[in-house]
Amino acid sequence: MSLTPRIDGDRLLGRLDAFAGIGATPAGGVNRQAFSVEDRRARRLLAELALERGFTVFQDGIANLFIRREGTDATLPPLLIGSHLDSQPTGGRFDGALGTLCAFEVLEALEDAQAETRMPVEVVAWANEEGSRFAPGVMGSMAFTGADAATWKSVVGADGALLAAELDATITALPEAALRPTGIPISGYIELHIEQGPSLEKEQLPIGVVTAVQGTRWLEVTTQGTAGHAGTTDLAYRRDPMVAAIAAIHRLQTTIMPLDSSARLTVGRIAARPGSINAIPQSVAFTVDIRHPLAEQLDVIETEVRQVCAAEAEAQHCTAMIKRSFDMPGAAFSPDMVNLVEEAVNSLGLPHKQMISGAFHDALFLARVAPAAMIFVPCRDGLSHNEAEYVEPDDAVIGACVLLRTAIMAASPR
Amino acid sequence: MSLTPRIDGDRLLGRLDAFAGIGATPAGGVNRQAFSVEDRRARRLLAELALERGFTVFQDGIANLFIRREGTDATLPPLLIGSHLDSQPTGGRFDGALGTLCAFEVLEALEDAQAETRMPVEVVAWANEEGSRFAPGVMGSMAFTGADAATWKSVVGADGALLAAELDATITALPEAALRPTGIPISGYIELHIEQGPSLEKEQLPIGVVTAVQGTRWLEVTTQGTAGHAGTTDLAYRRDPMVAAIAAIHRLQTTIMPLDSSARLTVGRIAARPGSINAIPQSVAFTVDIRHPLAEQLDVIETEVRQVCAAEAEAQHCTAMIKRSFDMPGAAFSPDMVNLVEEAVNSLGLPHKQMISGAFHDALFLARVAPAAMIFVPCRDGLSHNEAEYVEPDDAVIGACVLLRTAIMAASPR
Repeated sequence: MSLTPRIDGDRLLGRLDAFAGIGATPAGGVNRQAFSVEDRRARRLLAELALERGFTVFQDGIANLFIRREGTDATLPPLLIGSHLDSQPTGGRFDGALGTLCAFEVLEALEDAQAETRMPVEVVAWANEEGSRFAPGVMGSMAFTGADAATWKSVVGADGALLAAELDATITALPEAALRPTGIPISGYIELHIEQGPSLEKEQLPIGVVTAVQGTRWLEVTTQGTAGHAGTTDLAYRRDPMVAAIAAIHRLQTTIMPLDSSARLTVGRIAARPGSINAIPQSVAFTVDIRHPLAEQLDVIETEVRQVCAAEAEAQHCTAMIKRSFDMPGAAFSPDMVNLVEEAVNSLGLPHKQMISGAFHDALFLARVAPAAMIFVPCRDGLSHNEAEYVEPDDAVIGACVLLRTAIMAASPR
Repeated sequence: MSLTPRIDGDRLLGRLDAFAGIGATPAGGVNRQAFSVEDRRARRLLAELALERGFTVFQDGIANLFIRREGTDATLPPLLIGSHLDSQPTGGRFDGALGTLCAFEVLEALEDAQAETRMPVEVVAWANEEGSRFAPGVMGSMAFTGADAATWKSVVGADGALLAAELDATITALPEAALRPTGIPISGYIELHIEQGPSLEKEQLPIGVVTAVQGTRWLEVTTQGTAGHAGTTDLAYRRDPMVAAIAAIHRLQTTIMPLDSSARLTVGRIAARPGSINAIPQSVAFTVDIRHPLAEQLDVIETEVRQVCAAEAEAQHCTAMIKRSFDMPGAAFSPDMVNLVEEAVNSLGLPHKQMISGAFHDALFLARVAPAAMIFVPCRDGLSHNEAEYVEPDDAVIGACVLLRTAIMAASPR
């Protein structure tokens, strides 16, 4: 007879401390970059904890790490829960680690209670989510969901190391974990993560139910006019690319986001050439970061950016050149899986809100192959990718409770 | 009995060529910076030509050079006509030299015709107009109109030379020119200059009748917000200093100049910090160059810039800091002197327009002590401060004819 599975808060917080010690930085953060010695130590610790509890440990060709607890129906693919263990070079203790260790706590809670699930449940620690040492990031989840990992083998890291060699060393450092193919059928995926933004903390909500991950597209715009003296150039002869750029950006800033609350448009970089106080510039270059969960809306926004820039340039007798320099489509999560998270949150009586993730996560890729969802917990001041990253212990435990309830429902569908 | 004074076009064009040979650059321009050996050679050539014609030559303590032809009424202060002989380091052949040599041609034309004027007429070559070697520029006319030249003596040039030493050497290199006090009473001042802008050429007008010189003021604006992730920062928590800066600049660009055709507003420099494609900036800094002939309108525009920046910053929960980094009041020319130029142009049947000078000129300072006016002639593509600067020979001669007629009327008032 099984008990009701319960999160052991002290055990979870102790684990968070233990993992924060691996690659700890003097400023209280962690440096545990992908495929590094520190990354290997964290993977080893998790594998050892898993083996102690009698779970099975696997890894695949890109060093994704899986910890499996069997279900009652061996024909069903596993439910995956997890996140990542690698960090930024001056990263925080919670980005990735919190989701991975909450997932492991869920597995232990199920085991403590001898609870049965229909599906197998697997904790996953995706390899190289951050991409700070070896670009691109989210490498593990991309490979798991079908990307060709062969092209990354020759990537040279920020520290001069070759990815192929470091990946090999990472995999062979964990002989306890049997190698299995990269990318297996799964029943679903649930990832808990810190918000990496300020909204939950400011609204005093312990949980965000994430309905989608925004896609990101970067555009680089250059308006080109005719340089001229700020004073002597007659009004009729000014072909001012700054006027064109400002008018275009202003139109975009005052329409895109106000019209669609899921859209984000950010101009983070702008410069004029030659950049003289007393000269009409020759050209103005600026970047546009656009985000939307729906790929087709990214297309719509990009078209709008192109049309607005062309029109405002023409109005000033200037030209506009636009280059797309980055494109990562987003994904809406499965409504069924999102509803399970909602149900879990409601059953715990927790204040919460539905929200969209503005940053990439491994879940973005998993959502392409299975029902997926994410659970956000607040982090102080919205800080992340920062050694001062901080999550209240209570919020970490509450997050684990929500993950546990969701996983139980997802792994034993009615 | 005197003849009608006439401009000798060939003589004028020959003189232009001769002076263009002093400090000539391989690319066809001139490098004849203030108080340099080349500047001294140009001053010597002009003084020698003057002495050959029997004119008197003076200089003052800042090395302004005067060539005097007496009038019939020794009690009247002289009418000054002229410009400057110094150049930018990669300057053109006409900026300054054209006005100085046209003025000398006028003096020779009067002498050729044995024409009498009531006032003495003096050609002036103002010292250090450009300021490229020793800042500030327009030093000669500023000292002539009352500025204290003593403070400039310790200025060190771009080439390491001390102004006091180079000025001394320049003055002593021309012993033929008697020294007289800096700043004497004058009856009026007329300066011919290239437009340094494209409007006359584009409108196929040989003459611009300049009614005023714009004042210039530089403002440096910084909007300050909160840096954040372009994707994860919720709409409600964005404090985007780029949105504030763009909205402010857009409001200024769409109101100031359209509402007042004498006003100019130019944003020539802009930058965001930290300048990441995928981050809301922490701050955005930009410059505002404002110009207007009326000092009180510069005040009005500066107030508008301050109000607009503050309001748009506040609308984004940002702040705006504004610093005034440069201020040079403009001047409206004497309507009487402008009317004389108009009359001269009309008597020659020349197409022309009234216009405002967007650049400083020595005339800006002379207008503060006497009736002054300027005559503009077209330059190719509006290019100036450029070795490719070019004036059509016909336009140079036409300019000299207008200067001659105006000077005759101004020097013998009815």
